[in-house]
Amino acid sequence: MLEMEAVRRIIRRALEEDIRSGDLTTACVLSGTEEGTATALAKEDLVVAGLEVFREAFRLRDAGLAFSTSLEDGANVARGTVLATVRGNLSSILTAERVALNLLQRMCGIATLTAQFVRAVAGTKAVILDTRKTMPGLRVLDKYSVRVGGGRNHRYGLYDGVLIKDNHIEAAGGLGEAVRRVRERAPLLARVEVEVKTLAEAGEALEAGADLIMLDNMTVEAMKEAVALIGGRALAEASGNVTLSTVGAIAATGVDFISAGALTHSARAADISLKVKKAKG
Amino acid sequence: MLEMEAVRRIIRRALEEDIRSGDLTTACVLSGTEEGTATALAKEDLVVAGLEVFREAFRLRDAGLAFSTSLEDGANVARGTVLATVRGNLSSILTAERVALNLLQRMCGIATLTAQFVRAVAGTKAVILDTRKTMPGLRVLDKYSVRVGGGRNHRYGLYDGVLIKDNHIEAAGGLGEAVRRVRERAPLLARVEVEVKTLAEAGEALEAGADLIMLDNMTVEAMKEAVALIGGRALAEASGNVTLSTVGAIAATGVDFISAGALTHSARAADISLKVKKAKG
Amino acid sequence: MLEMEAVRRIIRRALEEDIRSGDLTTACVLSGTEEGTATALAKEDLVVAGLEVFREAFRLRDAGLAFSTSLEDGANVARGTVLATVRGNLSSILTAERVALNLLQRMCGIATLTAQFVRAVAGTKAVILDTRKTMPGLRVLDKYSVRVGGGRNHRYGLYDGVLIKDNHIEAAGGLGEAVRRVRERAPLLARVEVEVKTLAEAGEALEAGADLIMLDNMTVEAMKEAVALIGGRALAEASGNVTLSTVGAIAATGVDFISAGALTHSARAADISLKVKKAKG
Amino acid sequence: MLEMEAVRRIIRRALEEDIRSGDLTTACVLSGTEEGTATALAKEDLVVAGLEVFREAFRLRDAGLAFSTSLEDGANVARGTVLATVRGNLSSILTAERVALNLLQRMCGIATLTAQFVRAVAGTKAVILDTRKTMPGLRVLDKYSVRVGGGRNHRYGLYDGVLIKDNHIEAAGGLGEAVRRVRERAPLLARVEVEVKTLAEAGEALEAGADLIMLDNMTVEAMKEAVALIGGRALAEASGNVTLSTVGAIAATGVDFISAGALTHSARAADISLKVKKAKG
Amino acid sequence: MLEMEAVRRIIRRALEEDIRSGDLTTACVLSGTEEGTATALAKEDLVVAGLEVFREAFRLRDAGLAFSTSLEDGANVARGTVLATVRGNLSSILTAERVALNLLQRMCGIATLTAQFVRAVAGTKAVILDTRKTMPGLRVLDKYSVRVGGGRNHRYGLYDGVLIKDNHIEAAGGLGEAVRRVRERAPLLARVEVEVKTLAEAGEALEAGADLIMLDNMTVEAMKEAVALIGGRALAEASGNVTLSTVGAIAATGVDFISAGALTHSARAADISLKVKKAKG
Amino acid sequence: MLEMEAVRRIIRRALEEDIRSGDLTTACVLSGTEEGTATALAKEDLVVAGLEVFREAFRLRDAGLAFSTSLEDGANVARGTVLATVRGNLSSILTAERVALNLLQRMCGIATLTAQFVRAVAGTKAVILDTRKTMPGLRVLDKYSVRVGGGRNHRYGLYDGVLIKDNHIEAAGGLGEAVRRVRERAPLLARVEVEVKTLAEAGEALEAGADLIMLDNMTVEAMKEAVALIGGRALAEASGNVTLSTVGAIAATGVDFISAGALTHSARAADISLKVKKAKG
Repeated sequence: MLEMEAVRRIIRRALEEDIRSGDLTTACVLSGTEEGTATALAKEDLVVAGLEVFREAFRLRDAGLAFSTSLEDGANVARGTVLATVRGNLSSILTAERVALNLLQRMCGIATLTAQFVRAVAGTKAVILDTRKTMPGLRVLDKYSVRVGGGRNHRYGLYDGVLIKDNHIEAAGGLGEAVRRVRERAPLLARVEVEVKTLAEAGEALEAGADLIMLDNMTVEAMKEAVALIGGRALAEASGNVTLSTVGAIAATGVDFISAGALTHSARAADISLKVKKAKG
Repeated sequence: MLEMEAVRRIIRRALEEDIRSGDLTTACVLSGTEEGTATALAKEDLVVAGLEVFREAFRLRDAGLAFSTSLEDGANVARGTVLATVRGNLSSILTAERVALNLLQRMCGIATLTAQFVRAVAGTKAVILDTRKTMPGLRVLDKYSVRVGGGRNHRYGLYDGVLIKDNHIEAAGGLGEAVRRVRERAPLLARVEVEVKTLAEAGEALEAGADLIMLDNMTVEAMKEAVALIGGRALAEASGNVTLSTVGAIAATGVDFISAGALTHSARAADISLKVKKAKG
Repeated sequence: MLEMEAVRRIIRRALEEDIRSGDLTTACVLSGTEEGTATALAKEDLVVAGLEVFREAFRLRDAGLAFSTSLEDGANVARGTVLATVRGNLSSILTAERVALNLLQRMCGIATLTAQFVRAVAGTKAVILDTRKTMPGLRVLDKYSVRVGGGRNHRYGLYDGVLIKDNHIEAAGGLGEAVRRVRERAPLLARVEVEVKTLAEAGEALEAGADLIMLDNMTVEAMKEAVALIGGRALAEASGNVTLSTVGAIAATGVDFISAGALTHSARAADISLKVKKAKG
Repeated sequence: MLEMEAVRRIIRRALEEDIRSGDLTTACVLSGTEEGTATALAKEDLVVAGLEVFREAFRLRDAGLAFSTSLEDGANVARGTVLATVRGNLSSILTAERVALNLLQRMCGIATLTAQFVRAVAGTKAVILDTRKTMPGLRVLDKYSVRVGGGRNHRYGLYDGVLIKDNHIEAAGGLGEAVRRVRERAPLLARVEVEVKTLAEAGEALEAGADLIMLDNMTVEAMKEAVALIGGRALAEASGNVTLSTVGAIAATGVDFISAGALTHSARAADISLKVKKAKG
Repeated sequence: MLEMEAVRRIIRRALEEDIRSGDLTTACVLSGTEEGTATALAKEDLVVAGLEVFREAFRLRDAGLAFSTSLEDGANVARGTVLATVRGNLSSILTAERVALNLLQRMCGIATLTAQFVRAVAGTKAVILDTRKTMPGLRVLDKYSVRVGGGRNHRYGLYDGVLIKDNHIEAAGGLGEAVRRVRERAPLLARVEVEVKTLAEAGEALEAGADLIMLDNMTVEAMKEAVALIGGRALAEASGNVTLSTVGAIAATGVDFISAGALTHSARAADISLKVKKAKG
Repeated sequence: MLEMEAVRRIIRRALEEDIRSGDLTTACVLSGTEEGTATALAKEDLVVAGLEVFREAFRLRDAGLAFSTSLEDGANVARGTVLATVRGNLSSILTAERVALNLLQRMCGIATLTAQFVRAVAGTKAVILDTRKTMPGLRVLDKYSVRVGGGRNHRYGLYDGVLIKDNHIEAAGGLGEAVRRVRERAPLLARVEVEVKTLAEAGEALEAGADLIMLDNMTVEAMKEAVALIGGRALAEASGNVTLSTVGAIAATGVDFISAGALTHSARAADISLKVKKAKG
């Protein structure tokens, strides 16, 4: 479920960014023939995401490196768990380790945070969604990590889904007209969502035939009313500065989806260490 | 102090990532001739970083967009401050806004966090440093933001500075031999730093002629001893899980530098909103 | 409605493909200072598409070339109509003319053919759709040209819409299960279409909650029955070797959409000539 | 005779164009471990071209896919013939199939059309040539397909052959001067062709020492006279709106070459189906 | 006569190679607002080549830099001549100067050396040719510089001319068969040259209809005989370790062309200094 | 010690530059199945550099080619020595040979010239350095070749070392201020070098705390005085039009380093031939 060609482009850029004209230390100090092992270790409880990315970061530096793991993305692991091991040429390992680790820590960080949001809405029908507030250039990784953590993706970008906001509505001269234009011109397989701020707008969106209605920055009370108004005739999404402490109450309003930018724009890196050891010999 | 060619590559990729075959909503709903204004507003106190990047994100989408600001990077602004304004074609603004904002929020977030670290060591000689734990692909932005926040950059990558770690030492068969190899083979203008974990290693690094000695994950007590041992004959850097609550005590040991991965791997996005308005007409 | 950044990439590649180390003839024979004019002329009745692309092909070779036209994409023009004029450095015009013309002829060819399909279903509710059978590398141009000709786009690629075919169904172990997996895992804003070959399958797709049902290679009789069965609870699309001579009868079955690969995989280039003249001087 | 590095760039772009952030349907519905087979079947009589390209399209998606065929490019096959088979990971096959098929259909379409032109001039010495009216970005494929169909390539682009047209002549101040400039400045290994519209110009080109003379849009009568005038002292090429119905008469004039833009700008895709089947398991 | 798009790619790569994450010295020391002037001065007599490339190197770093010169490529200038001046932002000038100068020195070096070869064959009909022994990645610059120095280009690469060598002949099973295959398969506008080592081979090449015959590493005596044998029925090219001291005698044999790899693989950089001065203010 | 990812980019560009739409001769004449061998032979005494690059040039054209050598980079070999052999598909060998050889000749040329400079300073402590006067686009190869010849690299580019020149000093308003700015703003691991032209400036640089002092275009006498003045408190580098005939006297002044642009901007290609032979069969 992770498009590896896109991932490879990200990794190649990250390796190039870090190495450019060469890894001075490794090139000067090592002979180039030493062998070694790198072991990734969870330093805190976390949800694993990005094992394949971690592997590919080493593999793209040196196709001869061997990767092994007993885990799969999505696993909940405790502090102290070995996440994966890489063996082979020590120079290759030392040169690639920072990029591999930066990526893995980011992905586990997002998956772990997402899982906390998912747990916070357990028992409701609300599904946790991400947003386009991802790290520029890393969107496929960020969105994948949200899925691993139990969330679902909203859209990938401006190109694969329609979300009509107030500016679009104003430019079109009305919500109904905006929806009508989309229905006439957008690719057939794109759904239409409308962002609303009031109950009145929600009603208008419903009437215009929106597939989804985004309740933007509404109070919990207003959301409840909106959900009632919509009455299942469209899907309802809550949005706007959702946090771990507010998400539960929002879910209790009966919305179908809750999107949270924090999942990707403010996730901290998971605490993972990489121990590299030279093989005897 | 920000290499704009590198920045443009980052922005082009981010725009491409978000837009690809087109911004469906804007293309369907707008006529393409509407004009408008986007205003970036600080929703919390923050240190400004990335104004030029924000401007360039809009400019690379549409060279006709006009940018204005009364601020400069490094400014400490209060919640409610207008950071910048962009005027021109409304379609262009709507299509570029998310990328511009994602970048600006990331950069202000790092600068603001760095400034907190810098304040926490005020009155000591310690300078706050970043690490290579930056967001893959965004390093020039991350490192620039650290500088804006009052920190200093360690090295940019594996290519522009030598940092000898335990694995290098083991592969070379000794710390002295590792330093000797670097002195013989590395480009002339690269300094040599050695990472040590004990007082004994610090002494060895000093004797081997290291320009800098990184005290890795030492206790505050051990660091104090190491600083005394080094006695100004090399520069001393403290490193390892430095946080806002520990950084003051570390600085008090007399180290010259303190590096903190958290500045870049776990900075949260600054809270900034972008209000887009259609011009009357 | 045409994403110009994507278009520029196509044009740059096409210019590079044709020019590489240089336009030998022009470089050897011209002094480089001559001025001239290029006039594009319709040699047959056609629907205009690609004026902006034509302009950009010249502009990317030489930003100093001036373009003018009195037409807009979508215009129906008669044989003999001047489509556009380009003025400026003659060497630039001669070097870019073939690429500009190849693109314009392709785009007008598709728009003209699409308009014929659209006319053939006039009076029915059927909307003409394109497919992914576009010229590799030129999809944004092909799909735009279909829109200009009065058709609508299906999806842009594998990334922006879900179309479940027999192989997916077989792999999932059933149509219902396939739809269920998509509903659970796909981005929220993607619609789900299911391809069916029989009435029974159409019923199954309907029950599984498909947004659209593609009636693949069915007889006109079977399509009529399927449309009746679906009864407006999902959208119905006819597909499979649709030609200008069969499309009318298919539309009469009451389907909502008819997709035709021929629009893009077998459109012939519109007959357009480009007269280049040296300015006196 | 097909430059595969150039082909790989075309295929990578085509795959990226179709897949981008991922094949939603396949990623959602399949487990990723299913195996399968894809069989390409001729749905009409055709000349095979592009087997290696077809293979490479699958291989570049997944190097583990196995390709087999009993045919070679250039084979004349009847409706119903199996062209090639691909076996391996079903997800990889489903994701790459459209790109592979689009390319194969294009290439067979051109080869088949070229072969019809070649048959139409059988018994004369005329060789069928292509032009630069190829699909932007696909020129190496288009020109290869013409060769497979029995035609020959004119030049690849502006960079590898000199063709002096009226505008060049006017800019140089005369046909003789234009040829002289080329003889003095062009790379040594490039031949010189001159496009003429009248008998007088043909004589002038001959005198100026042209290697080839292109008889542009002349009547069959005029061409005969031109061929007689040239008398073997240069090669004669007929050009200008050549069709299957006119090409025979043109060949009978005794010209050495006949170029036809239609071979590439208006070839329709050959009718080829791809049956994908999941392996039992 | 210099393809500037290709040149821009070379310059962008060279700037990126030198600057990457930033010009540390300039970024740290200058404020970024200083203005200045750079003056290129010939430190030895030379033939000027590359003025436009020099200009573009500065312009691609900063479009605001102003370039001026009173010279044109091809000028013979004496030691002490000012070649060109660039004015504008001092940081931009300092960052781009090395790349601009490296390119200019290379190009003037080649043009100057070529002019020496041309002078050494004055009075004969021999034209000096380059080879494919150019600096990897810089071929368009190298070949242009040879033209500026009075030489002519052989072919640009493997793609734009046919040169049959012994290995090709052996693989084909004979010289005549090799030529025949090329005549049948190569693009129409490519000439055919055959490399020969003996008089007998020269005769065979002549008979096979070669357009050009390359006399490879023959003695002056043998070349004379070969020229006589060929008798103007093909063009004769001398090749093989040609130096300034041998080229005159070779030219006296009556060959039409003499190719010298040394023009590009061993040209030394012309001695040119660049004085940069800060403007008062 | 050679960053192969960077090398691969250079080779891919060089192959593309030479081949583009195809190797006409090889494609037309060979069947594509012939096998052969290419043997690189030293035609003069030389220092070997670039064996891995040579190998990679063939390997990137055709991964099936087998490379063998009994030498390592740095070896001093006599005229007549076989440097390396490549076996496999003859078409692949013929198409890649020129690029492979151009690169190998360049690299051996630089290494051989560097070794001559190194020998000329034998018995002194002076180390030979390169400069940024490398061939645009080939810097990693040029700098590696200098190392192979016994020299050492100065810096790689503007990004990995600080060298303060007169313009920087003037802009800062003084040498001391320029150094101070760098110490405050540059990445921690970059050394600071100051270029001086007089003894007075050398003293100033010393006082400002420069790590290295570059004595630019000084007389041998002045250099001696400068070395005495510096007295080991900084490293001293001699620079400016250093030649093989002057380098010995310069080394005798006691400087630590001598940099010579000639190593890379004016090295001639080493004389190496490549014999290609078709295998029997």
